[in-house]
Amino acid sequence: MAELVGNLLVAQSGGPTCAINASIAGVIQEAGKHEIIQEIYGGLNGILGILNEELIDINDEMAKTIEGLKHTPAAALGTCRYKIDFKKKPEKAAKDMDRLFEIFQAHNIRYFFYAGGNDSQDTAHKIHEECIKRNFEVRVIGVPKTIDNDLPHTDHCPGYGSVIKYNAATVMEIATDVGSMATDDGSCCIIEVMGRSAGWIAGGAALAKRHPDDAPHIILLPEIPFNEEGFLAKVKETVERLKFCIVVVGEGLKKPDGSEYSADSSRLDSFGHPVLSGAADRLAELVQGKLNTKTRTVKLGYAQRCAGHYASATDIAEAVACGEAAVRAAINGSSGFMVKIVRTSSHPYRWTTGIHDLKEIANVENFIPRDWITPDGFMVTEKFIEYARPLIEGEVVVPTEGGLPKYAVLKKQRLDKFLPPRA
Amino acid sequence: MAELVGNLLVAQSGGPTCAINASIAGVIQEAGKHEIIQEIYGGLNGILGILNEELIDINDEMAKTIEGLKHTPAAALGTCRYKIDFKKKPEKAAKDMDRLFEIFQAHNIRYFFYAGGNDSQDTAHKIHEECIKRNFEVRVIGVPKTIDNDLPHTDHCPGYGSVIKYNAATVMEIATDVGSMATDDGSCCIIEVMGRSAGWIAGGAALAKRHPDDAPHIILLPEIPFNEEGFLAKVKETVERLKFCIVVVGEGLKKPDGSEYSADSSRLDSFGHPVLSGAADRLAELVQGKLNTKTRTVKLGYAQRCAGHYASATDIAEAVACGEAAVRAAINGSSGFMVKIVRTSSHPYRWTTGIHDLKEIANVENFIPRDWITPDGFMVTEKFIEYARPLIEGEVVVPTEGGLPKYAVLKKQRLDKFLPPRA
Repeated sequence: MAELVGNLLVAQSGGPTCAINASIAGVIQEAGKHEIIQEIYGGLNGILGILNEELIDINDEMAKTIEGLKHTPAAALGTCRYKIDFKKKPEKAAKDMDRLFEIFQAHNIRYFFYAGGNDSQDTAHKIHEECIKRNFEVRVIGVPKTIDNDLPHTDHCPGYGSVIKYNAATVMEIATDVGSMATDDGSCCIIEVMGRSAGWIAGGAALAKRHPDDAPHIILLPEIPFNEEGFLAKVKETVERLKFCIVVVGEGLKKPDGSEYSADSSRLDSFGHPVLSGAADRLAELVQGKLNTKTRTVKLGYAQRCAGHYASATDIAEAVACGEAAVRAAINGSSGFMVKIVRTSSHPYRWTTGIHDLKEIANVENFIPRDWITPDGFMVTEKFIEYARPLIEGEVVVPTEGGLPKYAVLKKQRLDKFLPPRA
Repeated sequence: MAELVGNLLVAQSGGPTCAINASIAGVIQEAGKHEIIQEIYGGLNGILGILNEELIDINDEMAKTIEGLKHTPAAALGTCRYKIDFKKKPEKAAKDMDRLFEIFQAHNIRYFFYAGGNDSQDTAHKIHEECIKRNFEVRVIGVPKTIDNDLPHTDHCPGYGSVIKYNAATVMEIATDVGSMATDDGSCCIIEVMGRSAGWIAGGAALAKRHPDDAPHIILLPEIPFNEEGFLAKVKETVERLKFCIVVVGEGLKKPDGSEYSADSSRLDSFGHPVLSGAADRLAELVQGKLNTKTRTVKLGYAQRCAGHYASATDIAEAVACGEAAVRAAINGSSGFMVKIVRTSSHPYRWTTGIHDLKEIANVENFIPRDWITPDGFMVTEKFIEYARPLIEGEVVVPTEGGLPKYAVLKKQRLDKFLPPRA
């Protein structure tokens, strides 16, 4: 393998998480150990910023800021949802690729690390293929990241452990609250969590259960078509028995016809758009309307994916390791791979990193196996718990200032632009 | 003052908080030091459970469980929203009072501590008056508790510091997340927090600001009638300048006509009830409809008032002290008072406890002074910040088990019932 001397570019893409900055810290700290990597640059707002030549000099950042990224949620370099789409927009995509390689050449980028989910791994894969086509060597490695946990071939994704740790703690706390108010009238609380198509996040809330009657009492997963009758019967039975019922619903819950449960084109706001009402609010209307049980909703939304104040230490350690492994793989000559987490043991939990061909990862979604869900579809099974439990272990100590978290902020010293603005 | 020998009864009422159990721990631990207090009992589900003679023996609980209550959210004894209402239901109220004093006599209750908000202090006050009328000495002391922070004559309420600490951290984290996704399209995130009539909780989110352009960029308080035009102009200006805008809204935001902003009787669900859509969702429809800016909502709901994993150490210490002070006041012969927190200095923050006549507290609500709110009504001023800042200082260390909080749970050993069931 030829030694490839040049500069490194790292960028982030897709929805932020608690752990994606930890991966970036891993990339940067590992890269600093290898002399063949000359300069370390960051691309702002993912591929979108890179196309605009918005690059920053990471060497200009303090070491303690980079270390601080490990406990800092969201995407310190900024992120984007930009796709280089050869299928839908072939001309624009071709132009984007030309521009990207002009940027790579202008800044002598020879190592490119892209942290993100399915779409981002697809982008990384396309860039790797273009490198071969154009005979311009850049070692491209994808770094996995997604709270949705839906990337294939990796045991799980950095970012996932932290979101389910926070959500499970929140469900536990809400249950303590609602349970302490429970009197004979009975009540129901429906907590909406993220997850449009896969139910990994919703399922993870089951970690809040230490005893069979603990909350959550029902979990509604996007994988299981909504069974209204069965749901109402289960809420009724739970409220009668425990005086309250805690339901967790993945935002992407589907009706039996496959459409989203929360979507209702018949209810329009004053602008003529469908009323913004999530799955939890719709379910609350159902429970109140059919069972006459007082029901309240919680919609954690963005709060759940950036709750750095209660991140999983295991998740953060794995995210850092994925960043480091990406650099080592590239130094060793690999390109066109994504780093993956390989579980070597569940009891005790042990893991290592590996790499996997990007073409088998891009645009493939990983769902909960059906036998990890109870036959009635309202809860996950022990197999799921065994899988998810180790991922939330350990607390991250976040420094505070004035009683609130103190997160790292990059100076973002811009590199000089060598190219004319993007056409 | 005559020495009053007898048993102690402590109970909790109203919405749970992060700190109300800490007050109960304070009551129990202080009571244990005084020999004239013979037995320590807990009333389950507030006055409602007491009327049903649902009492537990606190001496049967382990000391470490009582200590653990200090970091345990919600109401460990259970709570209720039951009111002894002489105005609306005089006969029922009279019957309740008779029953209550039968319970007090049967169990020789001579010390009664009731932790709660406005309604609960009203109940404590009525019980105190009945003691005098009936010439049956029970020393009654109210222990303040409410996340709403709307009790008068106390500098602030135990429970408030923790909710605004958690909310401010959450707003800060959401802003980091939304800000890292901010590209030229612009986006808005609206976070709904509790507070039906007073805006103390919404205002407290301002603590997330370390710099003028930090989130939250707009706070909508229930005290200030909603100014739609001004709000839209401010969102537009913020999105143009920063590429994103974070709005915090108190759930009880009012229209200029005084009605709740979230209420809309014209939008009915399939059961003919008004659509369950909170203030944040209504505002999101407005922003998307009028400004065409991508808008997402977060509704923290119950999560915010029971987030023991990020409670304020200052709040918890004050809550414990209020419980202790209640017992000392009663031992010293006082009855018919609520414990209050007295701020003796803001720089550095210093406080002590005092007591205040219950008749001046019951049913009085405390709002944010107008000059603690900016002239345009969209933000709180430095006076508010100076007031609220010290209340969130310090983190509580919560023990964990399997990566999740380990909260204290009472055994709840019931006392024998001496009376026939409540008629």
